[in-house]
Amino acid sequence: MTLTVGVIGGGQLARMMIPAAVNLGIRLRVLAENAGESADLATTALGSHLNAEDVLRFGESVDVVTFDHEHVPQEVLRALVERGVAVRPGPDALLYAQDKLLMRERLGGIGLPVPNWARVSTVTELQAFLDANRGRAVVKTARGGYDGHGVRVVSRAEEAADWFTGEPLLAEELVEFTRELAQSVARRPSGEIAAWPVVESIQRDGVCAEVIAPAPSSEGRLADAASEIAFTVAESLGVTGVLAVELFETADGRLLINELAMRPHNTGHWSIDGSITSQFEQHLRAVLDLPLGATGCRDPWAVMVNILGGPATGALADRYPVAMAAQPGVKIHNYGKAPRPGRKVGHVTALGDELDDVVQRARVTASHFKA
Amino acid sequence: MTLTVGVIGGGQLARMMIPAAVNLGIRLRVLAENAGESADLATTALGSHLNAEDVLRFGESVDVVTFDHEHVPQEVLRALVERGVAVRPGPDALLYAQDKLLMRERLGGIGLPVPNWARVSTVTELQAFLDANRGRAVVKTARGGYDGHGVRVVSRAEEAADWFTGEPLLAEELVEFTRELAQSVARRPSGEIAAWPVVESIQRDGVCAEVIAPAPSSEGRLADAASEIAFTVAESLGVTGVLAVELFETADGRLLINELAMRPHNTGHWSIDGSITSQFEQHLRAVLDLPLGATGCRDPWAVMVNILGGPATGALADRYPVAMAAQPGVKIHNYGKAPRPGRKVGHVTALGDELDDVVQRARVTASHFKA
Repeated sequence: MTLTVGVIGGGQLARMMIPAAVNLGIRLRVLAENAGESADLATTALGSHLNAEDVLRFGESVDVVTFDHEHVPQEVLRALVERGVAVRPGPDALLYAQDKLLMRERLGGIGLPVPNWARVSTVTELQAFLDANRGRAVVKTARGGYDGHGVRVVSRAEEAADWFTGEPLLAEELVEFTRELAQSVARRPSGEIAAWPVVESIQRDGVCAEVIAPAPSSEGRLADAASEIAFTVAESLGVTGVLAVELFETADGRLLINELAMRPHNTGHWSIDGSITSQFEQHLRAVLDLPLGATGCRDPWAVMVNILGGPATGALADRYPVAMAAQPGVKIHNYGKAPRPGRKVGHVTALGDELDDVVQRARVTASHFKA
Repeated sequence: MTLTVGVIGGGQLARMMIPAAVNLGIRLRVLAENAGESADLATTALGSHLNAEDVLRFGESVDVVTFDHEHVPQEVLRALVERGVAVRPGPDALLYAQDKLLMRERLGGIGLPVPNWARVSTVTELQAFLDANRGRAVVKTARGGYDGHGVRVVSRAEEAADWFTGEPLLAEELVEFTRELAQSVARRPSGEIAAWPVVESIQRDGVCAEVIAPAPSSEGRLADAASEIAFTVAESLGVTGVLAVELFETADGRLLINELAMRPHNTGHWSIDGSITSQFEQHLRAVLDLPLGATGCRDPWAVMVNILGGPATGALADRYPVAMAAQPGVKIHNYGKAPRPGRKVGHVTALGDELDDVVQRARVTASHFKA
């Protein structure tokens, strides 16, 4: 058994697979667009994920192909499968992480709870949706959006007029949620599936800012409902590897599916330090069809805070002397990326028994890395 | 702050620094003798640690030089220092990890508890030592021994006759210990020092087989005595980075220093999964003169069992399906080395509340990787 995993994309998700791969003696190979990306240490090939030739050549050098992102086109994924390369998750599953309209259709079709939505191709159709949904809607491009890109909240259809360029858009009700949750699971090709505890994610400007694991007051019914939803998605769609399901919790206690990600996800970074098996180790185990690891929490609370942007001048590491001295127990993760406003350049995770204290320690540590 | 750490030696200790370096955004560069060694992923130069030219060239490419082993000759270390390279630990400290006679002399000189010992240059001198020490002694070559190599228990001086080749030997009383302990600390150049809990190490055939962290019934006096000894060694000898002090505990409750290692040590591998800060992260922080991380235990008990030798046929990973399925919570570490009788090819760490259960889970998991 050689255990060579190929990752398409050289970002921080590929990077964070390196420690898990080193521990387990798994060979990680990364196809990155450029030298010097976050996963540089494991980068063995440069090329574009859009270029079938680059991807096929890369696929031939590994036992299984998986992903740092969901942007590999379907035709490239299918060419890999036709060549006999194991692709996990496979194109049939990834389709639903790539196209939000297909995702909504499919999840609704299998009876999972989703916000009111409609496929709208014209301003008139969007206005009709607005009129039927209390005059406000979230409009999303079906493909290519992430971290708030490709998402717009509108109260008049004209506000999205520039987006009607031939491709239909997804219109969704503006859900009046009380908080956002995320449920991650991992699934092997042979069917074994395991869930981490459901977490709360706090978003700012459409970007994940903080995650509390487990979500406060989630034990019992809520946790069961969240994992049940994610299990159903993973099994119905045939997902392999890690699946993250972003959820809205409503005032009346319902859960509605917001987004899907079929890879390790920002809301699961707490698991590196906070779970017996991190999402990165579990993803590698799952795509290699190895038995899954235990997913329990190592401490009552783990709080992850993203380092967004980083220092205005200098490097993240310039702040280590102060940040590390102040919080010797907080785990710091540095993605090796140049600071840039809004960019995810790292995260910190605090662990402990008292939630307020853990939140405070995580926030204070992250604040040392700001301008 | 660029944080480039150079490690001389490409073995598993260098390898296990990789995950910590990736997390903290530290650039790790490794000088290995051959391609394909355990730390291959971080190997940036091939050369001999005995060759000053190889080592000097390597030293110029990093911010600080540290070590996978203690075998770099003093003259090479001193040439590095003369070139202005930060070497941590430095040659003045490493000397005492390289030469057991100097170590015994120095530790005795600063009043630390050591076994009865003598420098013996002839069979006659050794026999005199035997006669004064109940007729049994441990004879050690001053340099180059490890994992039971260069160590011989004798009851007649003639049994070591072949070792008298000009260099004096170290003769030590055969300590009647009740168990072996190990105390690891880390120290920064600026003086900050931090200790992990003292651990119990179980040796078989002179090789570390298992480690229990913390050592059972060690709280209080014993733990204080062990950390006090290690602090004194680190400060007196000016050690930077991780220092492991192997100790004998005697029936009358004394601690005697057995060996010193000035690098991450097998008895500290439990800390990867069991401590808030692993010895590998701490070593990197210490040699970079960054604030040290918290050294508390993450669970009441951590038990590490070495995988010695590995399967008689096939690779370690061939056993993953069975081992992982049986123990989803035990952490498996695979050094990427070919199995060979007696060779350290990996380790497993179990964690939990009940020591008997934790020992059992660690041993069962390790047993899956045996012939």
